[in-house]
Amino acid sequence: MSRTTLIHAGWILPMADEPLVLRDHVLVLKDAHIEAIVTAEQAQTIVADETLHLPQHVLMPGLVNLHGHSAMTLLRGLADDLALMDWLNNHIWPAEGKHVSDAFVHDGSVLAMAEMLLGGTTTINDMYFYHGAVARAGLKAGMRTFVGCSILEFPTNYAQNSAQYIEKSLAEAQEFTGEELVQFVWAPHAPYTVSDDTFRTVVDLADKHDWLIHCHIHETAFEVESSVSEHGKRPLARLDGLGVLNPRLIAAHMVHTNVEEVALAAERGISVAHNPASNMKLASGCAPIQAMLDAGVNVGLGTDGAASNNKLDMFADMRLGALIAKGFSQNPTDVKAYDVLKMATINGAKALHLGDKIGSLEAGKQADMIAVDLSAIATQPVFDPISHLVYAADRNQVSHVWVNGEAVVQNRVLTRLDQAEILANAEAWQRKIVAA
Amino acid sequence: MSRTTLIHAGWILPMADEPLVLRDHVLVLKDAHIEAIVTAEQAQTIVADETLHLPQHVLMPGLVNLHGHSAMTLLRGLADDLALMDWLNNHIWPAEGKHVSDAFVHDGSVLAMAEMLLGGTTTINDMYFYHGAVARAGLKAGMRTFVGCSILEFPTNYAQNSAQYIEKSLAEAQEFTGEELVQFVWAPHAPYTVSDDTFRTVVDLADKHDWLIHCHIHETAFEVESSVSEHGKRPLARLDGLGVLNPRLIAAHMVHTNVEEVALAAERGISVAHNPASNMKLASGCAPIQAMLDAGVNVGLGTDGAASNNKLDMFADMRLGALIAKGFSQNPTDVKAYDVLKMATINGAKALHLGDKIGSLEAGKQADMIAVDLSAIATQPVFDPISHLVYAADRNQVSHVWVNGEAVVQNRVLTRLDQAEILANAEAWQRKIVAA
Repeated sequence: MSRTTLIHAGWILPMADEPLVLRDHVLVLKDAHIEAIVTAEQAQTIVADETLHLPQHVLMPGLVNLHGHSAMTLLRGLADDLALMDWLNNHIWPAEGKHVSDAFVHDGSVLAMAEMLLGGTTTINDMYFYHGAVARAGLKAGMRTFVGCSILEFPTNYAQNSAQYIEKSLAEAQEFTGEELVQFVWAPHAPYTVSDDTFRTVVDLADKHDWLIHCHIHETAFEVESSVSEHGKRPLARLDGLGVLNPRLIAAHMVHTNVEEVALAAERGISVAHNPASNMKLASGCAPIQAMLDAGVNVGLGTDGAASNNKLDMFADMRLGALIAKGFSQNPTDVKAYDVLKMATINGAKALHLGDKIGSLEAGKQADMIAVDLSAIATQPVFDPISHLVYAADRNQVSHVWVNGEAVVQNRVLTRLDQAEILANAEAWQRKIVAA
Repeated sequence: MSRTTLIHAGWILPMADEPLVLRDHVLVLKDAHIEAIVTAEQAQTIVADETLHLPQHVLMPGLVNLHGHSAMTLLRGLADDLALMDWLNNHIWPAEGKHVSDAFVHDGSVLAMAEMLLGGTTTINDMYFYHGAVARAGLKAGMRTFVGCSILEFPTNYAQNSAQYIEKSLAEAQEFTGEELVQFVWAPHAPYTVSDDTFRTVVDLADKHDWLIHCHIHETAFEVESSVSEHGKRPLARLDGLGVLNPRLIAAHMVHTNVEEVALAAERGISVAHNPASNMKLASGCAPIQAMLDAGVNVGLGTDGAASNNKLDMFADMRLGALIAKGFSQNPTDVKAYDVLKMATINGAKALHLGDKIGSLEAGKQADMIAVDLSAIATQPVFDPISHLVYAADRNQVSHVWVNGEAVVQNRVLTRLDQAEILANAEAWQRKIVAA
């Protein structure tokens, strides 16, 4: 049975190519998709099952978090302000070794997804282990979930070697065939943890199963230098030789990327996931985002995992991305507010090959969208809602969230997930981790 | 009549020299001051008028915003992503010229103070015009307010020349003698807008009236270069020659500061107000904060005005300050979470010469303090509340705010200020500004 909802919004931000804000328009939601966007006058003739009035709100596409490790929310704030190898060797990896399991990943992913949905993120491009647990969490949360299947040459709790990572991933993916909200993705971890042979296998498997590829690339200067020592070339050149640089690829980080590499990224049609908070916190550096945008590279925005961020807050990171781009280049016109909104919406959708389904509000698209209430003192007065969304609004101003037409957050409350249960689980894991 | 309140808190963060968190302790609030901090057991014998239970909260000192232009909230988001001189010449200064008045400053300051109080800021070190309006706003809001009296050589709506700025400031200050929450401060605008003679006068007047001095210094590379052309020396050296560098001085920005200048700042005992958001947004650069802290310079944290930030959110800017310090230096151990908490509390208090009265929770100090609720999904689990306050918490997790012992925010609601009236005023100004 079909259901139509009229959503009257103070402002609709469809995320068109150029900045466009529709004042006092109405979005017609029909089941899982957007039927139309019309004027208030035109809406009067439409018969609807429900009408929602959001006069002080911006209605816009849901945010796409293009790089995360959801389950790591259970390690949030366990260790900070440390040198990278100290942090990994003495804190993160030992904790993961002790605790990461199907149950850990499920509970951590649900916690992360609850946080992300409440903050307006409707899609997560994840990368971790125990993929069935991530997928089940996504279905439970009602969140659009890309399950990145990590592949490494060394053992973790999940698998022993690259062949086993691949085999287990394929087996887990089987269970979720046909689920509209869940897609599996190959996630060879990084150039320094994956061999040439494995990269070649991943490229073949991606073609065979029509999966995307998600990989950490050029995150640190050390990664680039050690590739030059070991392989005689920088990681991006090596991956290009292996066929990895193609439109299936989402390259996370790309911090240390020179002019030629930006051009190569554009030419090969890869997408980049920019993670400003993680890159600052781990002192990796600042990716040349304006240069990438100028070159036509499709750049999306990610939070990275809570162990290195520590909040999964796309609003905070839209602001951060816009701010540090200017601070590093010393050009205040770099990465403008609308650019960063595109990164967080339509560009993320394009990276996930869903540019025709989500990422903007257009008739015929799936209804992944959010309402942001600008009536707070902190976002008054309103001269330009685009500016406020990036530079002034907090994620707690997100009042409503729809994924595929379903209202998963209403008046700032999760409708599918049980907040008390999530908090109780987080507390139980906290006790377990502290005891260990 | 004396009144005692017991505040049971999950964590008390007194902001001692070294990181210290008291679990399940009780703060004894007596009228305007902190009587004691005791264990839950010790608290059982204390007779109190009221007992407040905040089991999932951190009780900590109120945040000190060490550099702001409160009234500019009425221009929030009016113009962004522009080159500095374009932004000033074509947007900010014309808007100020058309609108800034006693009423504008009052309403804008109240709007800013409402935002700041709700976000846990209890003290503002402001700098603007129409000082009586700022002071009245501070008294209305119940906020600790340092009224920076701008001095320039050129005319604005407020005054015609430096002598007149000074004369009007002294006259306005008269009205507020003896007000505990309000102090007046000399605010010579910047080295490039104030003459040698005026700086000398300000130094004398500061001694005479026992006022602090608040000045923008070394904000941009251009400022430093043009001083070298015009005066044959960098601004800091010029100001040192004029006697400005002394413990009364709060130098806002100090972005372009070399090793010798950091040492000079430490030697002279000046304080620095670091404004990470504004410095990034206007592409000024990143101040060498870790070097300043290492050298013993007292560094506080500021939001700057809403025209260049655009949110007066000390939580967002604690995180930003901690993140960009690492990103710029490429050292992940720079400006640790506790360092930035000190900057936002006790260091700010010291800069304002209130280090013995506020900025930490200690018996005998005035009760400027906040409670931050960590029970949200976004701050679970809790391994380390210090990490969460900087890297994970949002300002909307501030549930209670006390200034001088008075609860000005209770359960996230302003008690003294009328939110509806503030919003109506903001809307009226918006209409006026758009119409012009």
